[in-house]
This record gives sequence, C-alpha cells and structure tokens, in this order.
Amino acid sequence: MKLKIAVLAGDGIGPEIMKQGVAALDAVAKRFGHQFIYQEAVCGAHAIDEVGDPFPEETFKVCMAADAILFAAVGDPRFDNNPTAKVRPEQGLLAMRKKLGLFANVRPVATFDCLLHKSPLKEELLKGADFVVIRELTGGMYFGEKYQDNDKAYDTDIYTRPEIERILKVAFDTAMKRRKHLTVVDKANVLASSRLWRQIAKEMEPQYPAVTTDYMFIDNAAMRVLTEPTFFDVIVTENTFGDILTDETSCITGSMGLQPSASLGEHTPLFEPVHGSWPQAAGKNLANPVAQILSAAMLLEHFGLNDEGACVRRAVDASLEANVRTPEIQVAGGPDYGTVEVGRWIADYITRAES
Amino acid sequence: MKLKIAVLAGDGIGPEIMKQGVAALDAVAKRFGHQFIYQEAVCGAHAIDEVGDPFPEETFKVCMAADAILFAAVGDPRFDNNPTAKVRPEQGLLAMRKKLGLFANVRPVATFDCLLHKSPLKEELLKGADFVVIRELTGGMYFGEKYQDNDKAYDTDIYTRPEIERILKVAFDTAMKRRKHLTVVDKANVLASSRLWRQIAKEMEPQYPAVTTDYMFIDNAAMRVLTEPTFFDVIVTENTFGDILTDETSCITGSMGLQPSASLGEHTPLFEPVHGSWPQAAGKNLANPVAQILSAAMLLEHFGLNDEGACVRRAVDASLEANVRTPEIQVAGGPDYGTVEVGRWIADYITRAES
Ligand SMILES: CC(C)[C@H](C(=O)O)[C@@H](O)C(=O)O
Ligand SMILES: CC(C)[C@H](C(=O)O)[C@@H](O)C(=O)O
Repeated sequence: MKLKIAVLAGDGIGPEIMKQGVAALDAVAKRFGHQFIYQEAVCGAHAIDEVGDPFPEETFKVCMAADAILFAAVGDPRFDNNPTAKVRPEQGLLAMRKKLGLFANVRPVATFDCLLHKSPLKEELLKGADFVVIRELTGGMYFGEKYQDNDKAYDTDIYTRPEIERILKVAFDTAMKRRKHLTVVDKANVLASSRLWRQIAKEMEPQYPAVTTDYMFIDNAAMRVLTEPTFFDVIVTENTFGDILTDETSCITGSMGLQPSASLGEHTPLFEPVHGSWPQAAGKNLANPVAQILSAAMLLEHFGLNDEGACVRRAVDASLEANVRTPEIQVAGGPDYGTVEVGRWIADYITRAES
Repeated sequence: MKLKIAVLAGDGIGPEIMKQGVAALDAVAKRFGHQFIYQEAVCGAHAIDEVGDPFPEETFKVCMAADAILFAAVGDPRFDNNPTAKVRPEQGLLAMRKKLGLFANVRPVATFDCLLHKSPLKEELLKGADFVVIRELTGGMYFGEKYQDNDKAYDTDIYTRPEIERILKVAFDTAMKRRKHLTVVDKANVLASSRLWRQIAKEMEPQYPAVTTDYMFIDNAAMRVLTEPTFFDVIVTENTFGDILTDETSCITGSMGLQPSASLGEHTPLFEPVHGSWPQAAGKNLANPVAQILSAAMLLEHFGLNDEGACVRRAVDASLEANVRTPEIQVAGGPDYGTVEVGRWIADYITRAES
C-alpha cells in the first residue's frame, strides 16, 4: 500500500518522539513492502514563531493532501498562564480540529499488565479494564458563541442534530466491533444539550439492537471509571465532558505516556499521543516514544493494515517485557533507555520480524 | 445557644439518616445545654407527590425562617431516565439553591485512616490528603439561558463579576483558615467565562498576600486529584466542573457515605451529605448515617460551636474504631449494625461525653 502521511511534530518533545514514530512506520514499510511518503509541516508554538499562526494555511493544505496525519504535541510554557495572549498554540489545535472536521476523538484505554503498579488505582480494579472513550471534538462550548468583557462572560454549549448523530454513529459502530456495550455520558438532568443527545441516542438505539446502551450522568461516570473501570466498553460524550473524562481515564492506566488516540472526521484522519508536549524534557532524550509509535499502529489499522498494526503492538509489548523502557516506567535498578534507544529497539524488532 | 433548624429529609434513605442526624444534635443539645428547635418540611419526589412541586413555597418559607437547614437527599427512580418529565426532583434541588442564594458548596475531602482500604486509589497516595473543594452552585450552565428543539439545543455558561467575586472570596477566606494554598480550576485556554474567573482571581490575589494561588485546567485537575491528592488545600471552581470534580474527589476517599457538605450563601446555610438518596436501600436500616451526622457537625461549627462539632467528630471516629459500622464499610467478620444502631451508638457517645 502507498500512503501519504503528513507529519506534524509540533513543540517540546514532539520532534523527538515523532522521529521514533516514523522509524516504526519505516520498519513496517520495509517488512511488509509498503510505501509511506512523509510530508512535514509546522504547527503549535513552533509555527507561531515561524509564521505567526499555530496552524498555518500551508500546514492545512499538507494535511488535506495527505491520506493520514501523524501528530505529536503542541504547547510551550511561554504561552502558559497567559490565556489572554492573542495567538496561542491551543488555537492551532482547535483550528486544526475544526478545519479538518475531526469530530470524533477515539481514545482506547488499555492497561499494560506490567505497568499496573504505576496506576493511582488499585491493581485489582484495573485488571481486564479495556474500553474506548469517544469524545466529540468540534462542537459544544469549545466552538459555541463566546463573549467576555470586564463584568460578564459566557460560552455557549451548542449542538445540532447532525453533529450529535454522526458522533453517536461512530460510537454505536465502535461498540458493534467490540463488546457491544455503549454508555452515553451526559448531564441530561440539567442540560438541554444533553437532553437532545439522549433523545437522539434513544432514537438510534433500534438501529443497533445488538448493542446494550446505557446512560450515565457525567458526575457519576467520573466516579464509576474509578470504582469499576471494567464496567465500560465504549463511552461516548460531548466535547467538554470528554476533555475531562479522557484525561481522567488515561491517567488511571498508569501508563499515560503509552496511550495513543485517533481523531476521525470529514477529511484526513489524525493520530496522536494522548500526552502533551512536556517542554521540560525537550531535547533530553527522556520522553517515551511509545504513545507516538502506538499512534502509528492506529494509523495502520485505520487503513486495514491489521497485521502491520499487530506487529507494531507486539514490538511494543516485547520492549516492555525486555525492560527496554524510558526512565518514567523503568523498573527499579533497570537500565536507562532514552527516546532514541527505545524507538530503535522497537523498529529493529519490527524489521527483524521475530514475531 | 438557641437554633431554629429546618429539617428536609427528602426521599429514599433521607428520612432514616435524618433521624440519626437529629438524634446527634439532640445529644449535643443535652450535653452542652443548647436548644435546637426543628421544623420539618417536604422536598424532592416526596413533595412532588404531596403538592406537585419538588421545592414548595411552604418549604421555602420554613427555610427562610430558620437559622440553618439540615438536608438529607432527594431523588427517586420513578424520575430517572426520564429527563424530559415536566417536574423532577432535581428541579427542586436547583430551585432550592437558587432561591436560598446558596452559591458556595463547600466539600471537605477528608480521609479516614481505617477506611483507606476502601478507596479505589492506592493508600499511600491518599495518606494525609485533606482538602476542601468549593463549588460555585448558583451560576454557569445550570442556570444560563437554555434552548431545545428537535434539531438544536444549547445551554449558556454565563458568569458575572459579582458572582465570581463572592465565590472567590469564600475560597480565599477558606484558604486563610487552612494551609493557605488555593487552586483555581478552570479551562481558561478555551472558555471565555474561565478567562474572566482567572482575571478576577488574579485581581484579588494581592488582597491575600499570605495565600499561594495557582491555576489549573480542569482536565489536568481531574488527573492531579488522583495522582497527587495531597497537593491540594483549597480548590475553587465553577458549577459544572465542580459537579464532576466533587464527585470524583469524594469517591477517592473510599468513604463517600461519610462525607458531609455545606452550602452557604445569601440566606440560610444548608448542610447535607454528599451522597444521594439511594432508593434501593430505603426502609432497610442499611444506610450509613455518618455523613448526615457529620453534616450536623458542620452546622454546629458554622455557628462557632466548635467544641460541639469536635465532640460529634470524636464520636464518629470512636464508632469507626469500635467497628460500629453499617455493612458497606464493616470489616470482614464484623457485626452488622444498621442505620439506627450506628446513630444510637454515636448519640449515646455524645451524651455520655466520654471524650
Ligand atoms: C489544549 C486544549 C485546548 C485541549 C482540549 O481541551 O481539547 C487538550 O486539553 C486536549 O484534550 O486535547
Ligand atoms: C442532581 C443534580 C442536579 C445535582 C447537580 O448536578 O448539582 C447533583 O449531581 C449534585 O451534585 O448535587
């Protein structure tokens, strides 16, 4: 297969982990006889510095012309605690999502047995937890009408029927491919927008008779993912609730640095680690490249390259078992591996095809 | 001291635990020579059945005429999964908060050493965690303009300067009485309303030079309370974020059934358990009365009756140590105590004043 891949490395540790993501893809290309053509483009703080825009038109064009986007992370401390700065890296992120129509953020929450001890949760609660959170990504308060003066401010949490239908379709379809259990998370006891979500989900239920659908308030869900994470299979929720819930659920695995995600929608699909740009570690060969590499695996699987995706996943599992790990997850007394060494080990494993 | 206390027992287990809350207050009155005058009033599903209104005018009057309100819980399965029902118990809750001007919901998040094993979090993370979450309770999306038709729906997350100033004042003042560390939780990188919160908090900072104030995005806070709960002293946040965060933080203690809260504002202050009405357990002498009893302790402390509050707390601690516990927190092989027995033991302890 021939794939054109837009490569957006962004800020902080982005460029370093991206190198390893691309190395994994190269190894797959070599082993399985594919052709991946990369096109780099700037975004984030990086792009503000270079062209004054965190998601420049040129980058947008590169994304639109590609079959898929591999994204790393954006964000820079120069812009932190300065939410009123005219141009901020986050605006680039939001512009990217909106212009590319990336309305469905899909975050598999998978645990790694050998890392359960890193979780803030008790291990016995997490054993066997395996679910996906689907967050609506281009609607709600993020994009509704806003106003702010010195005495008053508001944001509008607005959703239209087509926006809700398309994300629920992704959720029902995902449930069909998994254990057929969908949990719609909302605040229908208070919010009108949630009531419309719930109404539409109920209208769609008969189209998916095989799926068990239940409804949970967000406050309750924020507890249930902690007390009984194995309850869940597929969770779907709106943008703001999803922002909070996906970070909460990624963190309970004890391996936030290993979680990939996909953002799908109207145009080119995008694959990125769940973690951020960790500016403090930039250039230090410290960052874990695994989330980026697993994002590449999701990219491959998106195009039906399931053997290839499985091969990457096996390579990652093997690296963890062999204790080839970056410092934040290394076992006590284990050798120190850097971003480059972990990435190289995984790429070699893929190439040598031991699996 | 003479106090007029409005008693709103509500639904489900409400009436049972309320009896024990009142018994604790009676024991305090007897031991310390106070006079507490109770006035009962209906609310919740209960009140819908009786008078067609979950927060009737008559109840409002009783509350306004009282010095304090002791509240249990509202909610009934007949209204669940029926968010479009014309009259719902939650509306009574929201009307109560709004009409009584209860803008500050104060939730101490305290751990009980002997119950840490019940927490979903690892015990070593929680040891020493002791913080307060202050949730704005009468603004934001809960009360902003709403609209819903078949194709579109919105809610408005609106805050005015006076609303933000008064809740931040409660937060700064609370921090002054504690370890002087305030964390303002918002989403200022996306929301205009959050940016106004942050702006006003920064304006107020110089008035509280002794307080260390930091700012955290809600998604980050939802993780940090799990990975480092001891970081926090006082958290303040808006209504919707507070709904999610307070439930998350109550649940990590492993003793949700033991957490009280206060709602303070323009008129009569209200004290209530953090947990809900648990309809499945109603009438079964199963529910833990401790959160209700500790809510009574908060009530006493609100009026400067600190020795009295401390006495109630010691009685609760003693009951836990003596394994006089309801089933959900009883140790393996421990005797079964019901709502009544636990409540009676605590009241006796207060009366006998062993402490
Ligand atoms: C940086 C921020 C705007 C963004 C969001 O809130 O969507 C981030 O938290 C995320 O979840 O990708
Ligand atoms: C019942 C509901 C309206 C309420 C809220 O969201 O405020 C509850 O969850 C709470 O936290 O007291």
